[in-house]
Amino acid sequence: MTIRDVAEHSGVSVSTVSRVLNNHPDVSEAVRSRVLASVQELHYVPNNSARDLVRSQSDTIGLVVRGVGNPFFSAVIRAVEQSVSQAGYTMVLHQINTEDNELLAGASLARSKKLRGLILLGGCFDYTPEQTAALDIPFVCCSFTNSFGSLNKDAYSSVSIDDQAEARRAVEILVRQGHQKIAVLLDSTHDHSVSELRYHGYCQALAEHGIPLDPDLVAETGDFDMAAAYEGTCRLLEQKKEFTALFVIADSMAVAAMKALHDGGRRIPEDCSIIAIDGIDMSTYTVPTLTTLIQPQESMGEEAVRILLDMVEERAGNRHVRVSTALRAGGSVAPLN
Amino acid sequence: MTIRDVAEHSGVSVSTVSRVLNNHPDVSEAVRSRVLASVQELHYVPNNSARDLVRSQSDTIGLVVRGVGNPFFSAVIRAVEQSVSQAGYTMVLHQINTEDNELLAGASLARSKKLRGLILLGGCFDYTPEQTAALDIPFVCCSFTNSFGSLNKDAYSSVSIDDQAEARRAVEILVRQGHQKIAVLLDSTHDHSVSELRYHGYCQALAEHGIPLDPDLVAETGDFDMAAAYEGTCRLLEQKKEFTALFVIADSMAVAAMKALHDGGRRIPEDCSIIAIDGIDMSTYTVPTLTTLIQPQESMGEEAVRILLDMVEERAGNRHVRVSTALRAGGSVAPLN
Repeated sequence: MTIRDVAEHSGVSVSTVSRVLNNHPDVSEAVRSRVLASVQELHYVPNNSARDLVRSQSDTIGLVVRGVGNPFFSAVIRAVEQSVSQAGYTMVLHQINTEDNELLAGASLARSKKLRGLILLGGCFDYTPEQTAALDIPFVCCSFTNSFGSLNKDAYSSVSIDDQAEARRAVEILVRQGHQKIAVLLDSTHDHSVSELRYHGYCQALAEHGIPLDPDLVAETGDFDMAAAYEGTCRLLEQKKEFTALFVIADSMAVAAMKALHDGGRRIPEDCSIIAIDGIDMSTYTVPTLTTLIQPQESMGEEAVRILLDMVEERAGNRHVRVSTALRAGGSVAPLN
Repeated sequence: MTIRDVAEHSGVSVSTVSRVLNNHPDVSEAVRSRVLASVQELHYVPNNSARDLVRSQSDTIGLVVRGVGNPFFSAVIRAVEQSVSQAGYTMVLHQINTEDNELLAGASLARSKKLRGLILLGGCFDYTPEQTAALDIPFVCCSFTNSFGSLNKDAYSSVSIDDQAEARRAVEILVRQGHQKIAVLLDSTHDHSVSELRYHGYCQALAEHGIPLDPDLVAETGDFDMAAAYEGTCRLLEQKKEFTALFVIADSMAVAAMKALHDGGRRIPEDCSIIAIDGIDMSTYTVPTLTTLIQPQESMGEEAVRILLDMVEERAGNRHVRVSTALRAGGSVAPLN
């Protein structure tokens, strides 16, 4: 059974069968269905070993995901896996907790799996050249960059949003609705992570509108998970300072914050507006739908693979791509009464 | 830099360092932190290539995930990856859509990556021996089994809940609260999938309590995603038949159904009770918290790896493990007024 048999059976060319089997987008649904029906009927199994033999080096790309429960990463992982496969490479996934070291994990994976390149999905923003020295393959930081570190721009690649500017934009949306007492829910104000950057954006927006920063309205959770976000919001409600709006640094945390606000007797958005950044599927289905700045998860994954393979195949060097968010106006933000 | 340097630096034995680096659970947090601090300070990179050289065969285990956006799978994927890594193997992940064929994807991956074994996470319940013939390596069906198929018990392995019995249990919880007009939201009543099995459980519970089956209260969405679940619930509300409770076959679909009920002016649980099966993190944070039967996602992943490696390392043959759910009593079910 060869690809020719499948082509003959389904009445298309060998190259069309190949395009279908490799998930290329430029095939009509009708042809795709016909080819897959033939593949199934003939019990054909694509044999890639010839291609594997020709390629003298490993074809493996590593993906180290830091923050295993983060729903924001799901769509990115999917896009990376598909882009890597379509390019004829294999993706090896390694997932670590936020307290683990992604560079160490990546370097270990690179050696043991003879990686050609590495994508880090989630990580620290403060790498030093010493820390990355152990990584002797190209790597791309996906969803973060080296804002607090000392790497040369040409020593690493990145795909990210401008976290500080996007956080500033989110908080400005609240200010424009008349809110002045705006609380923030974050992991930490000084963790050299996405949390610290988005906190700076919050501070910047307040400063630009002459709103004094109130430390009582800054809720640090010490973690990115939903349980910590729920607890952090409860603490905000327990202290006596009033707030009419809440900026949460991540959608998943915002879902938990909405629950805590509800359990604390606050109506959203009547008693408290809420806005976040990320844009996960689930936050479309909160009541009300969460207003958020959506990161383009799929294109971030695809772009990370494109940058990495350009380096692996020696077409280009390190580069940095900034992507923009898109506002999803849900029902969680309202003008101040 | 060797593992001995790390052991000396952190004042523990080489074997303790090794246990930490391989994520073995039997190390105290204090020792673990100390060793990782030394690893980081010394910029030590574990070198597994000696181990890789000794092993003559590929060390790769495939994981084919069918239904890429399914949040229920996240915790299972994590557990599989960790168990595979801890056992010294490599996991290669391949994600496909629900309309794709996981056996074809698995067989292709097995050849191209020289897999030792395969875990299918999500798949059809109706395999024939002809269909699985292309898979000449051990495989484990994780979260499903061959209820509608013709495989011999000893030709495959599985880890799953008893879908029909658990669905029956969920619906009985509603019946015991006085509900008789119970709607069901599912992908399809006859798709030979988890949806059909859980539908049978629904029918069984109704029959056992003398409640006639009302086709108007059976909402087929034709898909497992949240958008389809939202639309399906809207259609249930538009038809004129009354219902006081809703059984949804999956948590993620239930989150969307709750939104649709809310948008349709129904209060949960006052106007409509809702119960589901799966137990994803996110459904803890719906308002009210979703009442659901939680599948033990982590242990299902771990068990699938255990079964598979027992076969790969020739300690045992195919076997089938049934796991039970645990009821999480949220706030979405109330007695009928």
